Amino acid sequence: MHDIKIIAFDADDTLWVNEPYFQETEHKFCALLEDYLPHHTVSQELFKTEMNNLPLYGYGVKGFVLCMIETLTNITDNKADIKLVNKVISLGKELLNKPIELLDGVEDALKKLNGDYRLVMATKGDLLDQERKLLNSGLEKYFHHIEIMSNKKKGDYQKLIQHLDCNPKNFLMIGNSIKSDVIPVLELGGNAIHVPYHTTWAHEQITQKINDPKIIQVSNITEVLNYLK
Amino acid sequence: MHDIKIIAFDADDTLWVNEPYFQETEHKFCALLEDYLPHHTVSQELFKTEMNNLPLYGYGVKGFVLCMIETLTNITDNKADIKLVNKVISLGKELLNKPIELLDGVEDALKKLNGDYRLVMATKGDLLDQERKLLNSGLEKYFHHIEIMSNKKKGDYQKLIQHLDCNPKNFLMIGNSIKSDVIPVLELGGNAIHVPYHTTWAHEQITQKINDPKIIQVSNITEVLNYLK
Repeated sequence: MHDIKIIAFDADDTLWVNEPYFQETEHKFCALLEDYLPHHTVSQELFKTEMNNLPLYGYGVKGFVLCMIETLTNITDNKADIKLVNKVISLGKELLNKPIELLDGVEDALKKLNGDYRLVMATKGDLLDQERKLLNSGLEKYFHHIEIMSNKKKGDYQKLIQHLDCNPKNFLMIGNSIKSDVIPVLELGGNAIHVPYHTTWAHEQITQKINDPKIIQVSNITEVLNYLK
Repeated sequence: MHDIKIIAFDADDTLWVNEPYFQETEHKFCALLEDYLPHHTVSQELFKTEMNNLPLYGYGVKGFVLCMIETLTNITDNKADIKLVNKVISLGKELLNKPIELLDGVEDALKKLNGDYRLVMATKGDLLDQERKLLNSGLEKYFHHIEIMSNKKKGDYQKLIQHLDCNPKNFLMIGNSIKSDVIPVLELGGNAIHVPYHTTWAHEQITQKINDPKIIQVSNITEVLNYLK
């Protein structure tokens, strides 16, 4: 991989643990409603509500909490005890207060790449929440620029790459989502490395088999260094 | 006012109507609860909840909706009909779907300043919501850069001005909030013009009398042009 000048990192489940915290919250939410419906049905209903509201709420914890509350009232046909709503609000606050747990090798990789490349963090989610996570991660000092994005489609990356005054061929994106971190960047003529995480939100999963030879996959972030040094 | 190179505009209640829509929603929320408490008490309780949650939720509609729901369960001592929660969620969606109503003279002022200055939009709120408002406003084409900020304190402006590669003395901020758009910018050695709006959210109001001769106040955005041309 030659001519890379800027390396952008996804944050959630690339730099630090995220999806397992959401899944833990969802599990507790399903448990609140087990008198009404089995866990997997509650999960399905929640996912439907999230997809319906995504264009309006976007990504992040606050929209997720609003979707849990809406699912709760729908599933119980407005018959649930309102105390359950309070519990969901508490689950949301708990999720927003989760500690930051860096993934193995992350800080070491950033340290080694810093200086030779301009490092950028490019993530979706709630603005304040992602800023807080970055602050608590202690990783802010490695990044030249932070971009919190409302979406990660081709047009969003185009804006980011323009903003960074970079040619796509000099841009490398590293992340755990083929759909959000890899495909749109390759489509723009940029570079991407996929670092899979053991669990992925259903919305980020892709059903078709991707056979693009341009997709580089490594098993952890430390291996990224082999492609760059 | 000399040497201005970059002009940043606040968005809500500076470029377009915002606070009246929030107040309309709050009014409807208080009406939902009038069997429990008088309007002004519900308003006070909601404001308290908002201030308690501000460090966690930040600014924007989604946090506001979560605070209305939390206030509802508190005020009614968990005895309200859960249908009210549904109604609050609908109020939130309605608020997110409000049309954009530009304030008088805004587009004309941007047109006249564009080209002579680099124009920036600098606003607080939910990321996706503010992007949608900008898109629907038709004003995007006038702006060189959009900054959606989690807060508007001195340190936040410092980051923005650095990011724009600008000297504070060449930076002018225009907005309707003395607290968020004027004071922090003046403290950094920048310039600011206050364009008051007929109504201001309690959190943006300042109680002390400000007698700083550096604060320029105009009665509408068109008058800003007199200081620049």
